[in-house]
Amino acid sequence: MSRTSGQVHVIGAGLLGTSIGLTLSNLGVDVSLEDISPQVQKLAIDFGAGRSQTAEDKVSLVVVCVPPDVTAATVISALNRFPKAIVTDVASVKSSVLEAIQSSDAETSRYVGSHPMAGREKGGALSGRPDLFVGRPWVIAVEKNTDAQAAELIEKLALDLGASPIRMSAQEHDRAVALVSHAPQVISSLLAARLVDGLDADLALSGQGLRDTTRIAASDPKLWLQILSANAESLEPVLTEFSNDLNKVIHALKEINSNGSLSVLAKALESGNQGIARIPGKHGSRNTSYATLVVMIDDKPGELARLLNEIGNAGLNIEDLKLDHATGAQVGLVEISVLPSIESALVELLQTNGWKLAG
Amino acid sequence: MSRTSGQVHVIGAGLLGTSIGLTLSNLGVDVSLEDISPQVQKLAIDFGAGRSQTAEDKVSLVVVCVPPDVTAATVISALNRFPKAIVTDVASVKSSVLEAIQSSDAETSRYVGSHPMAGREKGGALSGRPDLFVGRPWVIAVEKNTDAQAAELIEKLALDLGASPIRMSAQEHDRAVALVSHAPQVISSLLAARLVDGLDADLALSGQGLRDTTRIAASDPKLWLQILSANAESLEPVLTEFSNDLNKVIHALKEINSNGSLSVLAKALESGNQGIARIPGKHGSRNTSYATLVVMIDDKPGELARLLNEIGNAGLNIEDLKLDHATGAQVGLVEISVLPSIESALVELLQTNGWKLAG
Repeated sequence: MSRTSGQVHVIGAGLLGTSIGLTLSNLGVDVSLEDISPQVQKLAIDFGAGRSQTAEDKVSLVVVCVPPDVTAATVISALNRFPKAIVTDVASVKSSVLEAIQSSDAETSRYVGSHPMAGREKGGALSGRPDLFVGRPWVIAVEKNTDAQAAELIEKLALDLGASPIRMSAQEHDRAVALVSHAPQVISSLLAARLVDGLDADLALSGQGLRDTTRIAASDPKLWLQILSANAESLEPVLTEFSNDLNKVIHALKEINSNGSLSVLAKALESGNQGIARIPGKHGSRNTSYATLVVMIDDKPGELARLLNEIGNAGLNIEDLKLDHATGAQVGLVEISVLPSIESALVELLQTNGWKLAG
Repeated sequence: MSRTSGQVHVIGAGLLGTSIGLTLSNLGVDVSLEDISPQVQKLAIDFGAGRSQTAEDKVSLVVVCVPPDVTAATVISALNRFPKAIVTDVASVKSSVLEAIQSSDAETSRYVGSHPMAGREKGGALSGRPDLFVGRPWVIAVEKNTDAQAAELIEKLALDLGASPIRMSAQEHDRAVALVSHAPQVISSLLAARLVDGLDADLALSGQGLRDTTRIAASDPKLWLQILSANAESLEPVLTEFSNDLNKVIHALKEINSNGSLSVLAKALESGNQGIARIPGKHGSRNTSYATLVVMIDDKPGELARLLNEIGNAGLNIEDLKLDHATGAQVGLVEISVLPSIESALVELLQTNGWKLAG
């Protein structure tokens, strides 16, 4: 029951290409795939991501999943090789790719760029997984002259892969990812770089905060060098503003006993609170758009089920749920998020049934 | 079978005080606790973290778990109130606390500072959990004149709580945490602060990388203002070096086509790889000690309850649970963590009952 029809041809069997091939194949779509490395191509096919090309192929959609620095050239070549197909790509930068394609002789009206906001620190075909895109934003880069039907085709592809399509221009996309993806990568890498000269005794005190802030510093430098340099123009202003804020903090620390120093630090910390509150929940909607209740339950099997049973029986749908279950404590805490419209009904139900609500 | 003997008195029933009380109580240690807020004190006692003080108390160890800016004063008062007890604290900064205590009239030879490297973004008694310290480093701040027996007592406390004691001086500690904890906090807060002025459309593209790098930006500004200002001297040089590196990257982005610009970016990314490789692996963290299964459920009221009902009826206890509920997707993903010993029973149950396991 796929929205995508006809043969889809994937060029590049890395993490994204393989994941796209896997999902579409599972949906019954005819997927052919190629990779510049015959071994990688064979691996992805063995993995279930598609089949080899044949002379009888009638490709209706080409998805270019190659590194950013060869994306434009590969798209141009695909427009020429498959003269009846719509062509898209999945590169993390869109303006520079679009410019290069538009300045070519290819039939560029059949090209619509896109960018699924999904990835893992690990690349490669074997890291591919059919649920990679589920619930993730997928940018469809539309300009004024973008062909409406071509854009819809890519939107259907995104929906088939479980992603949430979002339309924006290449430039809007590049500015957005500079803020939410490329700046975090640079900052995380530079923070991790500080550890190189640390003492072993210092590093022995590492905790989860350090691990989380530096996790993406493990990303592939080759890939990211391409991304950062291709988006230098949008990225630089974000980092410059960060640098200005940082210099204020450094100055305040140097003069910690001077008037105003503490308020500089407080403002940095509070702005951090405000900023993180703006990050949408995993599902594309705001964290803050849910009402959250914390229920205390006895720490024994079946209690959580009893709680959720009562909520389900009342026809109330839970949007998110976290269980904070401290082994050895006499109670567990269940954090339940619901749409604000049913919050009061839920509170009434829980109180009527004798559940203890915390804080 | 605790190494700690005698009555332990916890002052301050926040996250750390409650967690210490919970674990020691579970080990059979007699724990009394007090908090400046009677309500918080009552909550922590209800939660199982200890009992109220009585006139018959014979306290052998006092653990001061109050905010950093009142730690020194509370330690001094505890040394006077409990003239036969060893006193420790758990504040995140050690030099300034030690100086304040040593300049008092109290019997300071009974004081040994300490710092468990454990925490959560959420504070408060209800966030307390007995496994908070398991596998975490716990710094025992020893100076030349530290009483050996007193230091051993705190080491036993750390071991009882499942932590790994590490001895270092207050100054060594403060320099280490500036690098691995305080600088990441500032950087994460400043990165999240950049999001305040972002467009909704920008934020809609947020992915896991942004969430991880900014997670600790949700931390309590009041607490962190105290920590950062108390450790300004050690923190400033780390941030200044970070700032120097960042300025090189900004300059390279501005002149992206000049010779040498790409190598500046490549060096930043590669140094990030090297830095993250220096972080020790997670030791005994609670995540790794659980087996995790992902179950796909239909996105409708009652399904989650039905699933958990079946698990509860089978007598299987869930240690942790996350619901990943993609709006618009037909299924939700439930991540269930259990003790490894019951994993196979759970898998069999779920397969027998027809649930779909993902991954």
